[in-house]
Amino acid sequence: MAAEITYEQLNKLNAAYGSCIDDDRLEAWPEFFQDACLYKITTADNYRQGLAAGLVYADTKGMLRDRVTALREANVYERQWYRHLIGSPVIVECGQEGVRAETAFLVTRIMRGGKTDLFATGKYIDRIVVDSEGRIRLAERVVVCDSGTVDTLLAIPL
Amino acid sequence: MAAEITYEQLNKLNAAYGSCIDDDRLEAWPEFFQDACLYKITTADNYRQGLAAGLVYADTKGMLRDRVTALREANVYERQWYRHLIGSPVIVECGQEGVRAETAFLVTRIMRGGKTDLFATGKYIDRIVVDSEGRIRLAERVVVCDSGTVDTLLAIPL
Amino acid sequence: MAAEITYEQLNKLNAAYGSCIDDDRLEAWPEFFQDACLYKITTADNYRQGLAAGLVYADTKGMLRDRVTALREANVYERQWYRHLIGSPVIVECGQEGVRAETAFLVTRIMRGGKTDLFATGKYIDRIVVDSEGRIRLAERVVVCDSGTVDTLLAIPL
Repeated sequence: MAAEITYEQLNKLNAAYGSCIDDDRLEAWPEFFQDACLYKITTADNYRQGLAAGLVYADTKGMLRDRVTALREANVYERQWYRHLIGSPVIVECGQEGVRAETAFLVTRIMRGGKTDLFATGKYIDRIVVDSEGRIRLAERVVVCDSGTVDTLLAIPL
Repeated sequence: MAAEITYEQLNKLNAAYGSCIDDDRLEAWPEFFQDACLYKITTADNYRQGLAAGLVYADTKGMLRDRVTALREANVYERQWYRHLIGSPVIVECGQEGVRAETAFLVTRIMRGGKTDLFATGKYIDRIVVDSEGRIRLAERVVVCDSGTVDTLLAIPL
Repeated sequence: MAAEITYEQLNKLNAAYGSCIDDDRLEAWPEFFQDACLYKITTADNYRQGLAAGLVYADTKGMLRDRVTALREANVYERQWYRHLIGSPVIVECGQEGVRAETAFLVTRIMRGGKTDLFATGKYIDRIVVDSEGRIRLAERVVVCDSGTVDTLLAIPL
């Protein structure tokens, strides 16, 4: 199954993923995942120490949808925009369970007044699969943030 | 026609485009465009509101060349350098009129003293075509800057 | 020989290179190079003026290994992490001596306390070859930093 996934498809998936968030089409964001999935945001320190505790955790597409709903309802804060720059993937493994890949990312945040800052850098640790309808989906995306001080309380997905 | 444009060609086009500007080979920059083209720099706010007004507007290759000439003549300011990091494109449409794609970018600015800052982030909204000589060209590049406070008065092309 | 190197392989090489450094697997970093190689860090100013003087210079894989050893032993400073974002390559030449390519990069630095800053931007000027065992290797990587004030005394490889 994994043999069907090309490097170009991985790049297109990541580009579409970033664009979806940056264009504020958050309702479409869960569709990048399988129904049974793992989405987790953690820090590099936690990840290196093997700590399970993450900043965000979801293991079904429904939980991802709930997160988007919560974000929309909590939208009482100053409006912010994001911009994802995503590197080329490193393919770590390619087998029956899909493609395991790691990919560097950088996200900037644009405040209402126009001020732009470096919001987060890190890497995606992914497992990508082909679903029963032939579409490329994330079975797992663990977002490992380099810094331990990322403000993800109010944040959009990374 | 558009069927001839591969994903790899889009990536190579963007890489060459960024390199051309960052190496200060501005006289070669208009050659990335068709003769009849659209090049526009606008802000995300304007773009979302459907406002036509942009920071920069050109619709022929001649206007792009004029812009470069003006930049060269106005070169009385402190010398600055730029660095483009350009993501992988999201292909939005692929048809008779070419490929429509959207691509994230980030540009840093390096001042004479060495200070580097985040100059602009945003996305390119492009229409890419194959010209009569078989070369890949930009028919349209709308540069949508995330921040409304980008200083483009003195700036090189984005 | 060079004809065997695809664009995808160049992107994968760069992704693996950045990941190797960012994951602190520095002992594996020299393996991206041929035995007889050129690795140099210089500034854009020096490069434009044709000055040979660089911040770092190595022309064998052994020197690269020595550099890693020295970094490990000098590790009395505050621990820092890095994140490479690497663009798509511009292929400049493709011939008997391999592929010559130029590629934009951006590196952020994450301090122990979590503070993240823009550490360096620039371009790689590379010559990539296929070694006798069919592996893609760097014969030359000249790292041209845009700013002249990059702190490379203590730094990991770029």
